[in-house]
Amino acid sequence: MTEDSSFQATGHNLIDWLSDYFNNVENYSVCSKLNPGDIEKKLPARAPDRGEPYKEILDDFNKIIMPGITHWQHPGFHAYFPSNTSEPSVLAEILTAGLGVQGMKWITSPSATELEKVVIKWLQQMIGLPDNFKGVIMDTASVSTLCAILAAREKISSYRINTNGFENNILRIYCSTEAHSSIEKAVRIAGIGSNNLVKIDVDENLAMVPENLLKAIQDDKKNGFLPTCVIGALGTTGTGAVDPLSEIAEICNNHQLWFHIDAAYSGTALILPEFQRTVQGYGRADSFVFNPHKWMFTNFDCSAFFVRDAGLLTKTFSLIPSYLQTDQDTELDFSNWGIQLGRRFRSLKLWFVIRHFGLEELQRKIREHINLGKIFENLVYNDKRFELVAPRHLNIICFRLKGTDSKLYNHNTKSLLTKINQSGEIFLSHMELNGEFVIRFVCGQTKVNEKHIHKAWDIISSCASEIESAD
Amino acid sequence: MTEDSSFQATGHNLIDWLSDYFNNVENYSVCSKLNPGDIEKKLPARAPDRGEPYKEILDDFNKIIMPGITHWQHPGFHAYFPSNTSEPSVLAEILTAGLGVQGMKWITSPSATELEKVVIKWLQQMIGLPDNFKGVIMDTASVSTLCAILAAREKISSYRINTNGFENNILRIYCSTEAHSSIEKAVRIAGIGSNNLVKIDVDENLAMVPENLLKAIQDDKKNGFLPTCVIGALGTTGTGAVDPLSEIAEICNNHQLWFHIDAAYSGTALILPEFQRTVQGYGRADSFVFNPHKWMFTNFDCSAFFVRDAGLLTKTFSLIPSYLQTDQDTELDFSNWGIQLGRRFRSLKLWFVIRHFGLEELQRKIREHINLGKIFENLVYNDKRFELVAPRHLNIICFRLKGTDSKLYNHNTKSLLTKINQSGEIFLSHMELNGEFVIRFVCGQTKVNEKHIHKAWDIISSCASEIESAD
Repeated sequence: MTEDSSFQATGHNLIDWLSDYFNNVENYSVCSKLNPGDIEKKLPARAPDRGEPYKEILDDFNKIIMPGITHWQHPGFHAYFPSNTSEPSVLAEILTAGLGVQGMKWITSPSATELEKVVIKWLQQMIGLPDNFKGVIMDTASVSTLCAILAAREKISSYRINTNGFENNILRIYCSTEAHSSIEKAVRIAGIGSNNLVKIDVDENLAMVPENLLKAIQDDKKNGFLPTCVIGALGTTGTGAVDPLSEIAEICNNHQLWFHIDAAYSGTALILPEFQRTVQGYGRADSFVFNPHKWMFTNFDCSAFFVRDAGLLTKTFSLIPSYLQTDQDTELDFSNWGIQLGRRFRSLKLWFVIRHFGLEELQRKIREHINLGKIFENLVYNDKRFELVAPRHLNIICFRLKGTDSKLYNHNTKSLLTKINQSGEIFLSHMELNGEFVIRFVCGQTKVNEKHIHKAWDIISSCASEIESAD
Repeated sequence: MTEDSSFQATGHNLIDWLSDYFNNVENYSVCSKLNPGDIEKKLPARAPDRGEPYKEILDDFNKIIMPGITHWQHPGFHAYFPSNTSEPSVLAEILTAGLGVQGMKWITSPSATELEKVVIKWLQQMIGLPDNFKGVIMDTASVSTLCAILAAREKISSYRINTNGFENNILRIYCSTEAHSSIEKAVRIAGIGSNNLVKIDVDENLAMVPENLLKAIQDDKKNGFLPTCVIGALGTTGTGAVDPLSEIAEICNNHQLWFHIDAAYSGTALILPEFQRTVQGYGRADSFVFNPHKWMFTNFDCSAFFVRDAGLLTKTFSLIPSYLQTDQDTELDFSNWGIQLGRRFRSLKLWFVIRHFGLEELQRKIREHINLGKIFENLVYNDKRFELVAPRHLNIICFRLKGTDSKLYNHNTKSLLTKINQSGEIFLSHMELNGEFVIRFVCGQTKVNEKHIHKAWDIISSCASEIESAD
C-alpha cells in the first residue's frame, strides 16, 4: 500500500468512525472517569525512532485517548458553554488542514482574506450589527477582548503607549462583577493592572447597574484617573444576564469611553429577530465579540470580532516588517488587525456551516435550544425540592437545592452535582452566586433535543432523592 | 440520502480530493493570479436563508475559492517560511474537529492535557532541551514570545504590574536588529513600548554582537532603566542567522535578565544531533519557542513553547489568587500557561505526525532539505550574474543580481523577483538587507526534492536572462 492510498483508506475510515461517533456519542460516558496521570502512564516517554502504521496509531487512539475524552458533542453535555462542532464544520476543516494556507496577508492566500471578509459580513448582518462595523475572525473571545482593550488603550493615549510604554498609569477599565475572567486577564496583559479594573455592582437580574457605572467614572475622573473602556456583557458567563447596553452606550458616549461588548455565547441568539429586539443598544458599541465556536455549530476556534472603526485596530497592531511589505492597503491584511501574524483559514468552516444549514435552520435550532431551556426551567420550578437562583436567560438555568440552612443546602447541592456527574449520562457545571454553590445547566449542544432534557431531569431528580434519603 | 450518509459521502470525496491535491499540487500555479476583490465579487453579499447541498458548496469551493489559493503545499513554494502540512497531520485534524473538545483544563478533557504533556516532552527531548524545562502548545510564536515577555515583566516587577499596572516604566527588552517583528508587537502589547526595545547591532554573519548587548545593558542600568529580557534568535527570519546564545546566556545570568529564544523556524533542525552541537547554549535559556507548524509537517497552528520555571508562567497567567493556588492544579490546567482560555486539542496532530514518520524519517527529511539548500547555494555561487548576500543558514539562501550600481541592481533584482513569481511555477519572497533588495529562497516544503531545486534554478536563471537582455 502506498503512502497515499494509506492516507485515503485511513481518511475514509476516520470519516466513517466520526459518522458513527456522531450517531452514537450518547453511548459514551459524557465525562471521562480517569484520574490525573492515567493516560500519561500509558504513553511512551520518548518519541519512536521508526515510523508506525496508521493502524497502530488509531488503535492507540481508541484504547488510550478515547477513554480520556470528555464528550463535548454528547447531547448530555450541559456544562460550561457548549463548544459545538457539526458535520459541515468538520468537512471544511479537512480542506483547511490540507491546503494549509496562511491568512496573514491578502497575498499569502487571497481566498482566505476575501472569504473572511464576506462571511464575517454575513455574520454581521445575521446578528443585526449596523453596516458601519467591520469584522475579523479571531481565535478566542479572550484575545478579541484583549484586542479591544489594547485599541482603547492606544486611542486614549494617542498611540503613545505602543511607542513609549506607560508614562504614567491612570487608565481605568469597567465591567460588572459578573463579567468574564478573560477581562481581568486582558487588563493585566495590557499593563493596566487588575487594580484598575473597576467592577460595577449588578442588580437582582445580575446586570450592571448603570448609575453605579456613571458614579464610578465620575469619581475616577475627580481622582485623576482616565476612564478608558467599559466592557458590557451581552450574556454573562454565569447566568447569561444582559447588561443595560443602551444606558452604557450613552454613558460611554458622554464620557468618551470605548464600549466593548462581550457576547461570547449569547451573541449567536442575535440571529433571532425577536432576541435582537429584546436586547437593543449593542449596535452602539465600539467593538463586539461573539464566538460561533460556542453555539453556532462551528468547531473551535472561531471568534467573530467587530469594530466600528477598523482603522483604530490596524493603527494599534500594524507593524509590517520589510520582508512582508507590499503595496496593498493595511486593512486588507488581517494580521494587522490583531496579535498573531500567522492566521488559519477559519472562514472556510463558517462558510460551510452557514451554507449547509442556511439562516432559517440555524434560527430554528437556536429557537429550539431556547425552548428546551424553558422546558427545563419549568421542570425545576415545579419540583419543590429545588430553587431557581437566577432568572433564566436563553437556555442557561441556575438552580440549587432548597433549604433554610445555607451550609446544609450548599453542601447537599455540591454532593448532588458530584452524584449527577458520576452518572456519566450528563455533565453539568457549577458557579458561585452570592457566595452560594449553584448548579448551572446549559442546553445548547448541537444534537440536544427534548428527550435529552427529560432524561437529564430524571437523573437530576433521582440523584436528589438519593441525597435526601442519605440526609 | 440522510444527512449522515451525505456527510460520509462528502467526507470520502474530500479525502480523495485531498489525496489528488497532494499528488498534483505541482500542476497549480503556486501563487494565485487574482487581484484584490476578484473573489469577493463572486460571493453573495448575504447569507443564504435555506440550506444548500454539500455539492453546491464544493462546486463553489472549486470554482471560486481554489483560484484564489496560494499553494503553500506546492514544492515550488520557497517564500517566507513554509507552513507545512502532511497526511498524518490532516488525519489527526479530522478527529480534533470532530471530537471538538476543549483543552483549557484537565477536567475538560483529560486526554487533551495529558497527550499534550507527553508529546511536548517528546519534542523537548528531540531538540535537546534539558529535562528541567516544561512545555506547552501555543498557537503561534507571536503569542509564545508575548507570553515570555509578560512572564519576564512580571518576574522583574514581583508580579506588581499584573496587579497595579505600570507604576513607572523603566523596563528594557533587547533583541538584535534582525529579530522578528513579533517581538516589537509583544513589547507594545505588554505596555513596555517599542522605544524600550533596544535593538542590538549584528556582525557580518547577521548575529547579535554580544559586546554591544552587554554595553547596552550596562548603559541602561546607569541611566536608571531596568533591563528585563533578551530575545535571542536561533535562526533569524531573514537569513536564519543564529545569535551567540552561550554568550547571551552568560550576560543574562550575570545581570539577571530573562533569556528567551525565538527558534520559530530553525528549531526543527535541532532534531539533528549535528545541528544541536553547532548551536549550543540554547539549553541555558529561560524560555524557548519553535513552531512545528513551519518545518515539522504539522499543520498550522502548533507552536511549542518551553519554560525552565513553569511556575513563573502560571503565576503570570493564572487568575486563581495565589493563596488558593496549588502547584499541581495550577500547572495541570494549561489555560493557566497563557493568554487564551479555550484551547484546541493540538497535541493529537503532533502525536500522529511524530509516530507516522518516526524520529529517523523526520531527521532524514530535514537533512535532505538542508542539503537542498547547499545545492541551491552552489547554483547561485557558480553563476557570475548573482551574488550571495548572506551566509547560508540551513536552507535559507539570500541573493541578488550582481552589479556596481546599487540603484540598478536593486531595481533589476526587484524586476527579477516579479518575473519569477509571475511564472506561477515557483514563489519566492524578498527582504531588505543593509538597505538592499534581496531575494530569499527557502527549501523546506514537505514535498520538495532535488528535481524542484533544479527546476527553480532554471526559472530563476532564464528570468535573469530576460532581465539582462531587456536592460
